[in-house]
Amino acid sequence: MRSISAVWVALLISTSAAAQGEATLPSWNDGPTKRAIVEFVGAVTNEDSPSYVPPEKRIATFDNDGCLWAEKPLYFQLIYSVDQVRQMSDAHPEWATTEPYKSAIAGDLNSLLETGAEGLSKIVVASHANITADEFARSVRKWLAEARHPETGRAYDEMIYQPMLELLAYLRANGFKTFIVSGGGIDFMRVFAEETYGIPPEQVIGSSIEAKFEMRDGIPTIVKLPGGLFVDDKVGKPVGIYQHIGRRPLFAAGNSDGDLAMLQYTTIPRSEMDASRRFGLIVHHTDSEREWAYDRDSHVGRLDKALAEASERGWTVVDMARDWARIFPEKN
Amino acid sequence: MRSISAVWVALLISTSAAAQGEATLPSWNDGPTKRAIVEFVGAVTNEDSPSYVPPEKRIATFDNDGCLWAEKPLYFQLIYSVDQVRQMSDAHPEWATTEPYKSAIAGDLNSLLETGAEGLSKIVVASHANITADEFARSVRKWLAEARHPETGRAYDEMIYQPMLELLAYLRANGFKTFIVSGGGIDFMRVFAEETYGIPPEQVIGSSIEAKFEMRDGIPTIVKLPGGLFVDDKVGKPVGIYQHIGRRPLFAAGNSDGDLAMLQYTTIPRSEMDASRRFGLIVHHTDSEREWAYDRDSHVGRLDKALAEASERGWTVVDMARDWARIFPEKN
Repeated sequence: MRSISAVWVALLISTSAAAQGEATLPSWNDGPTKRAIVEFVGAVTNEDSPSYVPPEKRIATFDNDGCLWAEKPLYFQLIYSVDQVRQMSDAHPEWATTEPYKSAIAGDLNSLLETGAEGLSKIVVASHANITADEFARSVRKWLAEARHPETGRAYDEMIYQPMLELLAYLRANGFKTFIVSGGGIDFMRVFAEETYGIPPEQVIGSSIEAKFEMRDGIPTIVKLPGGLFVDDKVGKPVGIYQHIGRRPLFAAGNSDGDLAMLQYTTIPRSEMDASRRFGLIVHHTDSEREWAYDRDSHVGRLDKALAEASERGWTVVDMARDWARIFPEKN
Repeated sequence: MRSISAVWVALLISTSAAAQGEATLPSWNDGPTKRAIVEFVGAVTNEDSPSYVPPEKRIATFDNDGCLWAEKPLYFQLIYSVDQVRQMSDAHPEWATTEPYKSAIAGDLNSLLETGAEGLSKIVVASHANITADEFARSVRKWLAEARHPETGRAYDEMIYQPMLELLAYLRANGFKTFIVSGGGIDFMRVFAEETYGIPPEQVIGSSIEAKFEMRDGIPTIVKLPGGLFVDDKVGKPVGIYQHIGRRPLFAAGNSDGDLAMLQYTTIPRSEMDASRRFGLIVHHTDSEREWAYDRDSHVGRLDKALAEASERGWTVVDMARDWARIFPEKN
């Protein structure tokens, strides 16, 4: 029996090292942020702790834009939409003289932004609706393979935060189920979330439009329709979590006021008797050298109210410049 | 090293016995139905098989009413709704003289059914909307604990099919992720699906209404609203699968024409090059002794077109009287 025990001891040691050893979150600098994460995960996974939470309730939700990947100079999905509108413009000669298409085709992002939410939604609808789900996924996949970020030259799915990849893996190694809960499009993110983040499509929640099912030439087909927009942002995030997950997260991470309601929903006790521990994380973009520094005055990822509420609520704020040893992964 | 190998051999044998041994699907009689299931699962989980499917793509979707639990004399959720309307009637004196409430309060189910889809939807809205998500869940939990089936005297969550419980467990033991995809209400089913079927809330898909998030006296609250009905039935099922799961199932089980589109979406190849194996299962209610026998002429769970299409599509049809050694689990 001694050698059998030795096998188990070896297995336990290697599991323990992977989950809690020196290699934990290697791209996070030692300091209060990393310590707060590791302490929390230790408490809720320790069966002897009063804060213990069984695995099926270890739900962790992550915003995507500005939290798992970058969002400057513009939400990447909007860049995709503009690229699609430019490619489709030959078939739409009327766009040459009509906003917001005219500015999109000209690549004039400032004028495009001036068309506001109404203009931007037209660009998104033109590129996301009246197309089958399979065609849309192929289009996004092709774009990710070919398009490059204007400032770094990286593929957009390499503009991801190495410390957050490690945090996702660390939580999963500790029995958490990781979800994306983003204002981004649900089926845009599903194209790359599994390969990029290890998050399967069924754990991606985002903004959506209606869809219908039909048989086309004998092939079962899902078609994306222009109506029925659900915006999975701000107060839409707890609704998206409720509709898709059906229980309250144990851990939520975001970076902007779009995540405020999700952080509140996750962390605020529902009654005076609720003493369960919860974790709220805000990624604060403070690193103008290695990434971008922005918060209250940014047109993307504005962070104002959520930052003001962080200390009152006990949310942990990541100072990217201080807390992260590196920003992006090694280039492929 | 010999004793280490012995450990692995022992582990492999025990896994194999659990997954494929004599105890497989004990409430399924030996015959073509059980053999078809076991053969399919063996083929898609065998790495040396040309039909091998990696675990992340082993998605199995199950209808609920008439597939995992019974649906006679009436969908159980409708019985819940009627019970709620009766309880609420003191606060709504106008209901005493207004249909469909009048028939519901009188317990006159035949008259209630004559009010049609419009009448029934009013009963559902009265009992499901303008209530917080937490209040709704508590109400369903209380009803399940107290209400009893009019013919069997069982609790409704004991009117479940033992062979289907075994099938769910068998698929999960073989790396499948099991989902409910039902015309029933998503948050009605989530109250009991985890304990009853081992299916966590995030893997339950169903019909839904809108919801909103708000802070009530400082407590984050989800409120169910009367609008925005999504009907997760018929052509709505592939749409629900697309929106919630984001990939095509490998295995789908249903029992009525409400499941036809889901079975088509799951099993029909998308191109001539698609030679992947898929499994469609139809539970045919043929047992008037131990359960109920019905198909084409039933007002609940009508099975007509899907049964006619089964042989053409290669779907496996369960003959409950022939294939199932028992129907319901032992009573608690």
